[in-house]
Amino acid sequence: MANTEGSKLWGGRFVGDNDPIMEKFNASIAYDQRMWDADIRGSKAYVKALEKAKLVTTDEMTQILQGLDQIFEEWSKNVFVIKPGDEDIHTANERRLKELIGTPAGKLHTGRSRNDQVVTDMRLWLRDAISTLTDNALQLIYTLVHKNTHLLLLVFLFPCSLVEPTLSHAVALSRDVDRLQEIKKRVSVLPLGSGAIAGTPFDIDREQLRKDLEFDGISLNSMDATGQRDFVAEFLFWASLCLTHLSKMAEDLMLYSTKEFSFITLSDAYSTGSSLMPQKKNADSLELIRSKAGRVFGRCAGFMMTLKGLPSTYNKDLQEDKEAMFDCYDTVHAVLQVATGVMSTLEIKQSAMTAALSPDMLATDLAYYLVRKGMPFREAHGISGKAVFAAESKNIALNQLTVADLSAVSPLFESDVSSVWDYRSSVEQYSAPGGTAQRSVAAQVEHLRTWQKKHAQ
Amino acid sequence: MANTEGSKLWGGRFVGDNDPIMEKFNASIAYDQRMWDADIRGSKAYVKALEKAKLVTTDEMTQILQGLDQIFEEWSKNVFVIKPGDEDIHTANERRLKELIGTPAGKLHTGRSRNDQVVTDMRLWLRDAISTLTDNALQLIYTLVHKNTHLLLLVFLFPCSLVEPTLSHAVALSRDVDRLQEIKKRVSVLPLGSGAIAGTPFDIDREQLRKDLEFDGISLNSMDATGQRDFVAEFLFWASLCLTHLSKMAEDLMLYSTKEFSFITLSDAYSTGSSLMPQKKNADSLELIRSKAGRVFGRCAGFMMTLKGLPSTYNKDLQEDKEAMFDCYDTVHAVLQVATGVMSTLEIKQSAMTAALSPDMLATDLAYYLVRKGMPFREAHGISGKAVFAAESKNIALNQLTVADLSAVSPLFESDVSSVWDYRSSVEQYSAPGGTAQRSVAAQVEHLRTWQKKHAQ
Amino acid sequence: MANTEGSKLWGGRFVGDNDPIMEKFNASIAYDQRMWDADIRGSKAYVKALEKAKLVTTDEMTQILQGLDQIFEEWSKNVFVIKPGDEDIHTANERRLKELIGTPAGKLHTGRSRNDQVVTDMRLWLRDAISTLTDNALQLIYTLVHKNTHLLLLVFLFPCSLVEPTLSHAVALSRDVDRLQEIKKRVSVLPLGSGAIAGTPFDIDREQLRKDLEFDGISLNSMDATGQRDFVAEFLFWASLCLTHLSKMAEDLMLYSTKEFSFITLSDAYSTGSSLMPQKKNADSLELIRSKAGRVFGRCAGFMMTLKGLPSTYNKDLQEDKEAMFDCYDTVHAVLQVATGVMSTLEIKQSAMTAALSPDMLATDLAYYLVRKGMPFREAHGISGKAVFAAESKNIALNQLTVADLSAVSPLFESDVSSVWDYRSSVEQYSAPGGTAQRSVAAQVEHLRTWQKKHAQ
Amino acid sequence: MANTEGSKLWGGRFVGDNDPIMEKFNASIAYDQRMWDADIRGSKAYVKALEKAKLVTTDEMTQILQGLDQIFEEWSKNVFVIKPGDEDIHTANERRLKELIGTPAGKLHTGRSRNDQVVTDMRLWLRDAISTLTDNALQLIYTLVHKNTHLLLLVFLFPCSLVEPTLSHAVALSRDVDRLQEIKKRVSVLPLGSGAIAGTPFDIDREQLRKDLEFDGISLNSMDATGQRDFVAEFLFWASLCLTHLSKMAEDLMLYSTKEFSFITLSDAYSTGSSLMPQKKNADSLELIRSKAGRVFGRCAGFMMTLKGLPSTYNKDLQEDKEAMFDCYDTVHAVLQVATGVMSTLEIKQSAMTAALSPDMLATDLAYYLVRKGMPFREAHGISGKAVFAAESKNIALNQLTVADLSAVSPLFESDVSSVWDYRSSVEQYSAPGGTAQRSVAAQVEHLRTWQKKHAQ
Repeated sequence: MANTEGSKLWGGRFVGDNDPIMEKFNASIAYDQRMWDADIRGSKAYVKALEKAKLVTTDEMTQILQGLDQIFEEWSKNVFVIKPGDEDIHTANERRLKELIGTPAGKLHTGRSRNDQVVTDMRLWLRDAISTLTDNALQLIYTLVHKNTHLLLLVFLFPCSLVEPTLSHAVALSRDVDRLQEIKKRVSVLPLGSGAIAGTPFDIDREQLRKDLEFDGISLNSMDATGQRDFVAEFLFWASLCLTHLSKMAEDLMLYSTKEFSFITLSDAYSTGSSLMPQKKNADSLELIRSKAGRVFGRCAGFMMTLKGLPSTYNKDLQEDKEAMFDCYDTVHAVLQVATGVMSTLEIKQSAMTAALSPDMLATDLAYYLVRKGMPFREAHGISGKAVFAAESKNIALNQLTVADLSAVSPLFESDVSSVWDYRSSVEQYSAPGGTAQRSVAAQVEHLRTWQKKHAQ
Repeated sequence: MANTEGSKLWGGRFVGDNDPIMEKFNASIAYDQRMWDADIRGSKAYVKALEKAKLVTTDEMTQILQGLDQIFEEWSKNVFVIKPGDEDIHTANERRLKELIGTPAGKLHTGRSRNDQVVTDMRLWLRDAISTLTDNALQLIYTLVHKNTHLLLLVFLFPCSLVEPTLSHAVALSRDVDRLQEIKKRVSVLPLGSGAIAGTPFDIDREQLRKDLEFDGISLNSMDATGQRDFVAEFLFWASLCLTHLSKMAEDLMLYSTKEFSFITLSDAYSTGSSLMPQKKNADSLELIRSKAGRVFGRCAGFMMTLKGLPSTYNKDLQEDKEAMFDCYDTVHAVLQVATGVMSTLEIKQSAMTAALSPDMLATDLAYYLVRKGMPFREAHGISGKAVFAAESKNIALNQLTVADLSAVSPLFESDVSSVWDYRSSVEQYSAPGGTAQRSVAAQVEHLRTWQKKHAQ
Repeated sequence: MANTEGSKLWGGRFVGDNDPIMEKFNASIAYDQRMWDADIRGSKAYVKALEKAKLVTTDEMTQILQGLDQIFEEWSKNVFVIKPGDEDIHTANERRLKELIGTPAGKLHTGRSRNDQVVTDMRLWLRDAISTLTDNALQLIYTLVHKNTHLLLLVFLFPCSLVEPTLSHAVALSRDVDRLQEIKKRVSVLPLGSGAIAGTPFDIDREQLRKDLEFDGISLNSMDATGQRDFVAEFLFWASLCLTHLSKMAEDLMLYSTKEFSFITLSDAYSTGSSLMPQKKNADSLELIRSKAGRVFGRCAGFMMTLKGLPSTYNKDLQEDKEAMFDCYDTVHAVLQVATGVMSTLEIKQSAMTAALSPDMLATDLAYYLVRKGMPFREAHGISGKAVFAAESKNIALNQLTVADLSAVSPLFESDVSSVWDYRSSVEQYSAPGGTAQRSVAAQVEHLRTWQKKHAQ
Repeated sequence: MANTEGSKLWGGRFVGDNDPIMEKFNASIAYDQRMWDADIRGSKAYVKALEKAKLVTTDEMTQILQGLDQIFEEWSKNVFVIKPGDEDIHTANERRLKELIGTPAGKLHTGRSRNDQVVTDMRLWLRDAISTLTDNALQLIYTLVHKNTHLLLLVFLFPCSLVEPTLSHAVALSRDVDRLQEIKKRVSVLPLGSGAIAGTPFDIDREQLRKDLEFDGISLNSMDATGQRDFVAEFLFWASLCLTHLSKMAEDLMLYSTKEFSFITLSDAYSTGSSLMPQKKNADSLELIRSKAGRVFGRCAGFMMTLKGLPSTYNKDLQEDKEAMFDCYDTVHAVLQVATGVMSTLEIKQSAMTAALSPDMLATDLAYYLVRKGMPFREAHGISGKAVFAAESKNIALNQLTVADLSAVSPLFESDVSSVWDYRSSVEQYSAPGGTAQRSVAAQVEHLRTWQKKHAQ
C-alpha cells in the first residue's frame, strides 16, 4: 500500500505545466484516426467553400487540395506518422498539411471549429457504415428467406413448418433495416458551417457544402448541430435491438442443437472443440452472437448516461461518442456475417424433427373440430383437455383414442375425427395471412423478396 | 432470523394446488386493466370477423356486442368489479361477458389466443398514447418558439442571442416528434389473427379487422407478431432520448437560475420552499424533469435485458412490457406538460444577462477582423490571444486597449477595430443558415412553424 | 392533433399560483406512505433528543409521543386519512400530529430537515427489508441444499451428480447473502442530526439517537449524509446480481423441463395452462423468475443515470430512490419465495436423466486412463478423440469399441480400459474439494449448513 | 447496395473448414494477452501440484518451470511473438512452451481446463489491480483531506465552511475503498482445480495451490467456480458507483469555476484552450471525469445483460468479462489520478466566495434565534420568512432591518438579534458530529486520517 502521508508521488507530476496522464486522458487520436478519410473529405469541401467566399485564393485552395490528397495517400498506404501533440485526427491532418504546404494551411480552419468539424466527420463515417450494415443485414435476410423448407417442426408444443420461425427472424431483421434507413436520413444532415456554437460569420455556402459532401439536408440550428449526438444514440440503440433479435435466433438454434433436440447440426466452421473433452463440440458461434446484445446495449446505456444532464453546447463528455459508435459498428458487422455463415451452413435433421412431433400437439385441432360442429370454443377447449386426460389415463397417445372413447367425452365426435391426426393438414389449415400454411408462407417469402429488391438497389 | 431447519413456513404453502404468492406474481390485472377500452374495441371487431366467417351467428354477434357495450359502460363509470381469478384484463372482460350473456360468450375466443389479443390491445393503447404525447411535445415546441426574444446572452463565453439556445431545444424536440411518428407507423400494424403462434385456421378476414380497428397494415408472420415487442422497446428508447433532451434544457435553466447567474426566475408555481430555510426557493420542477431521464431509461434498460436471449414465440417474460410502457408514457406526459408550464411562466432578467457580457468574449471577433485583412486564421487566433494577454497584463478590459496597444501586437490593427466591440453586431454577423443573427433565427422560427402546422393537422 | 396556435390549453393552467400537474409530479405520498412506521419511529426518538436538549419540555415530549402513538394506531388499522397538501409521509404525519396535539407539534421539526428525516426513514425501512430478504434467501438455500440427491445427470456433455448444479446455485446465493450483510452494515448508519446539509446547531445527542434507533454508527459528514444514496444504489445492484443468479437457475430448469429433456416436471402450482392449447403446460413461474432480473437491473440503471452528474447536497432528483427501492424489494421478495416453491415441489425424472447419459461423455475419462499410464494429456486428448471418431465410423457407442479397436489407436489401451465405462465411477473420481464425488459434495453440503446456521441465528 | 440474388460473397468464405471472420470473432488474444503474467504464475503453481500428485516427474517440472521463466522473460522484454492459432493467452503460452521444451509441455494441462485456468488468471490480475486502485483512491482522499481550509463558502444558499463539501467527497471515497476491500476478499478465492466443470479426478492439492498463489480461500463448488463471474460484475458496479461520486465532485467544481461563480481556478495542466476562441479556457479535465461514470456503468450494464438468462456451466458469452474489466480498471485508474491532479493544483478564490455570502442565508439562524427564545420551530420559520419579505419590500438586506422592524414581525426580537449576522458564528454553531463547525470538521479529518493509515499499511 502507498505511503500517502508525505508522499510526493503525485506532487512530482505537477511541477511542470502538464500532466502526462491528463494528456493521454484528453487525447482521442488512438481511435478517431479511423475517420481520417472522412476528415479529409470534409476539409476538401470546406476549402472550396472558403475559396468561393474569397477567404482563400484559388491558388491557396489548389495547394491545400494537393496537400490533402497527399495526406490521403499517406493514410491509404498506412505510412502517415502520428506525432506527439496530435491529440486528434483533425490536429494530425492539419499539422501534416502545414508541414507539406506551409502558411496556407493556417487558413483552412477559418470560421470552422473542431466542434462542427468532428461531427461532420462522424456523420460522413457513419453514413458509410450504415450502408455496409444494410448490406450485411440483407445478406442474412436473403439466407434466411432461401433456407425455407416445409419440414415440420415442433415449436412450443405445436407442429409448425420450419420456415415459419426462420421467416420470423427475417421479418424482425427487415424492420431493423427499415429503422436503419430512417436513422441514415437523420445522419445525413450537414453540420459544417456551425462553428463552435454560433454559426459562421463568413459567407460560407452551406448548401454547396451539402451537395459536395452528398448530405440530404443542412442542420437548422448551430447550437443543436454542435452540441447534440442524437444520431449516435439512435445508432447505438438500433444496434442493441438488432442484436437482441439475433440473440433470440441464437437461443433457438442452441436449443435445437442440443443433444436432446438434435434438430440441427452446426458446421464445424462455427463450432469449436473443448480443451478438455475430446468428444465435445461447442456452439461457440451462437454463444458469441447471443453475448453481443449485452455488449452493444452496454455502449448505448453508457452513452445515454453520459448525455444525461449535460448543459447545452459542446461538452468534452461527448468524446465518449466515437468509441461507442465504432465498437457497435464492428460488433454488428461481425455478428451479421457470422450469423449468415451459421445459417447458410447448418444442417437440418428432418428425422429428429419428425420424431419430436406427437399427437397431443393436435389437441387444439381436436377442439377446433368441435368448434366447426358448433360448440363454443371455451367449451371445446375443455372437452379436448378431457380427451388428453383420457389418453394419459389409458397411457396411450391421443390419436389412439377410439371414436367410442372420444364420443364418451362429447357426442359430437364422429368417425371423421380421424382427419384431425395429420400434422401436415394441421399446419396447412393456418392459411390466413401470416400463418404457417404453404400458401401463407409463400406470400411472406414473396413479400420479403420484393422488399429486399427495393432495398438492394 | 428464520429458523430454517425444520421450518414449515414454505411447506405449508404447497399443501394445496396453488401458491398465492405465485398467483399474485403471475397476475397482471393490477396494471393491464388500464387497457380495458382497447380490449373491448378489439373484441368488438373480432366478433364481427367471426360472424363473417360463420363462426358465430348474427344473433350471437349482436348479443356479444351488446354485452361488450355494457362492460364498456361499467368501466367508464368506474363500477366494473374485478373478481378473484381475473388474472388479466382479457379474462376479466370475458368472465363478465359470460355473466351478462351466457353461452355465446364462449365463442368470442374462437381462433384467438391471449397471445394475439394482448398485443393488439397494447398497440391500440399505444397508438392513442403517441397521439397525446405528440400534442404535448408540439405544445412545448410552440412555447419555445414563441418565447424567442433577441436579448443577448452569455453562452459558453460567447455572446449569443437568447433565442438560439431556446430554439436548439425546440429543434431537438422536433426530431423527437419525427421519430415518434415513425414508431407510430410500426405500432399501427395489426397482429390479431395470429393466434398463439401459428396464425388462425379459420376464415378470419384480417384485412377487414385492420380497417375496423384503423391499423395501417397487418403483421406478416404470426410467430413474429405474437413473440416480439420491438414497438415497446422502440417507444421506451424514444422516451429516454426525449427526456435526455429535457434534462439538458433543465440543466441550462438551473444554471441560469442560480443566484450567481440570475438570468431567469422561475414562477412560484414551479418552485418549492424549504422546510428548514425560510428564504430558499428550490427549482424543484427542473430537478424533477432532469431526474426522469434516468427513470425512463431504466425502464428501457430493464426491458432490453429481459428481451435478451429469449427464444422465439411468446414467453411470459414479455409481461414486463406493460408496466414499462405505461410508466414511460405517464412520465413523459407529465414532464412535457411541466416543462411547458415552466417555460411559459419563467421571467427573463435581461439586465443580468447584459451585465454578464464582457469584451473578452469578442476575442474571436478580433481574430476575424485580422482574417478579413488577409491573415491566416491560425495566426490571427494567436495574435488575438496575445491581445487578451496584453489586456490582462494591464488589468484592463480587452476593448480598452488602444489602437497603439493593438498595433504593437499586429500592424494590421487600425482605428476601424473599434467596430469589433459591439455585442449586437457580433451576434448579427453569424448570418449563415443556422446561425445567431436575427435573419437566421427568423428562418429557423419560420421553419419550425411550418413544420409544426404540418404535424398539428 | 392540437390546435397549438392560439390555444389556451396550457395558458389556462397557469392563471393561479399553482399547476396541479406540477403538484402531482412533485408529491411522493403515493409511495412513501409505505414508510409510515419508520417515520414515526424516527420522530419518537427525535423528540426524546429534543427534550434532552431542552428544546421541548418533558410535558411537550409526552404529548408528542402520545400523538405519534395515536398516528401509529391509525396507520396500523388502515384508517389514517391522507389529505390534500400531504405531499409526503413526513408532512402527513406532522399535519396529523398538529391536528391531534396542537402547538407542540410545531417543535418536532426543530433542527431537523426533511433532508435528514427522509434518509433516516429509508434506512430504517431498508434495514428491516434486508432482514426479510435474508430469511427468504436462506429458505431457498435450505431447500436447494436439502434437495440434493446423487442422481446422475447429463450436464454440458458430462455425466454429473445432480447435486452439483443444485449446490452451485446455493453457493451463488450464499454469496448474495454475504453481500447483503455488508450492505446492511452500511445501511445501519444514522443520518439524523445532519439537518438540511450543515448539521444541527442544537445540542442533539446523536449517539443517543443511534442507540434508540438501533443503528450501528452515525454519519460522519452532514453533506454526505443528506446528499448521497449509495446504500440505495448498492441495494439495487445487489438485487440485480441476485436475480441474475436466479435467471440462471430458471434457465437450467426450463431446459430440463422441455419435452425433449424431461428431466424434471414442475408442480401444477407453478405452471399455467394455455388459453388456446388444451394439452399445454407453461413453465410460467420460471419465465417470470427469469424476466425479473431485467426489471430489477433496469431500476438500478435508471437510478445510477439519475445520480450521474448531480452536484452536492440534496437534489430533488434523489426522489427517484424510493420507488426503485420498494420495487426491487417487492420483486426479490416474491422471486425468492416462488423459486423456493418451485424447487420444493418439482419432480425429478431419474429415468430420463439416466437415459440421457451416453458413453461418449466418458471420452475425457478415456484420455485420463492414458494419462495415468504416463501419456501427456495433450496427446491423450488427441488419442481419445480418435477413439470417438473410430466409434462414430463404425456407428457404435464408444464403449462398444473392443480392446483391439482401442489398441489400434494407442497400444497403451489394455483390458482394464473397461473400468472407464462406469458413469458412477466417473463422477466419483472428481473427489478434490469442490468436485462431484459424493465425498466432495457432502463436504459442500456440510459447509453450507454450517454457514447457514451462523446466518440464521 | 449488395447484389444479394446470386451473390457468392459469403458463399466463398465457407468453401474451406473455417471462416476467418468467425476465427477473429472467437479469439481473445488481442486483449487477454494482458494477463500473461498471471497466466504464467498460475501455470508455475500448477506444475508443482502436478509433480506432487506424481503426474509429472521432478525433472519434467523443472523443464516446465524453466520454460515458463523464459516465456516470462520474453513477455517482459516485449519480444514474445503471437502466432496464428494463438487464440488466447493460454494457448499462446502453451504453444510457446512446447516450442521451448517439447513433449513435457503437453503434461501441463493435465486435469486443468481453460475454464478454470482463465478464471484463475483473471482473479490474479484483478487482485493486483484492486491494490493499485486502492492506492489511487487513498491518494485522492489524502489530497482532499489536506485541502481543507476554513474559508466560508456559499453552498445551496447556506454559508458553509469549504472543508465540509471537500470532506463529503472524501467520505464517499472512503466508502468506495471499504467496498473495494470486500470485493477483494471475494476475488481472492482460488478456482484452480475445478477443471471444465466437475473438478479434478487427480490428486491435486488445492490447498497448496492456494498458498502458492496467495489466495485467501478455495472455491467451494466446481460448477460455480467455472461458470460464474460475480466478482467481475461486482467490480464493474464498484467502478460505476465510484465514478458517480467523482462525477458529483466534477459537477461541483465546474459550477464553482464558471465565470459567474469564480470560486476556483483550474490549473492550466487540467484545462485546454479552444481552437476557435482565443480567450477560452475549458475545464476539460472535469468534463472528462464526469463523462466516465457513463462509460463505466455502460460496461456494467452490458455485462449484466450478457449474464442474464445464461444456463449453468461455462458459456462462451462469459468472454465479454475481460474487456469490460480492463476498461473499467483503466478508466478508474486514470480518473482517480487526474482528479488528484486537479484537486492538488486548483486555486481557491477566497474573495469571490466571501462576496457570494449574503445576509438572507442567515434566515434559518434568525428562526433559530426565536426557537432559542421558546417559539416552536414551525412558527419561527414563518416569522423569519416574514422578515425576509419585509427586507425585500424595503429593498434592503435582511441584516439591515432595524430591531424595530423585526419586533414588528415578532416581539421576541430584541437588540441581541445583531449576533445573528455573523457568517462565521453561523457556521460554528453546527458543532454536533458531522456538522460544519471547526471542531466537527477537525474530528472528521482526524477520523479519515486514522482510517487512511489503517488502509495504507
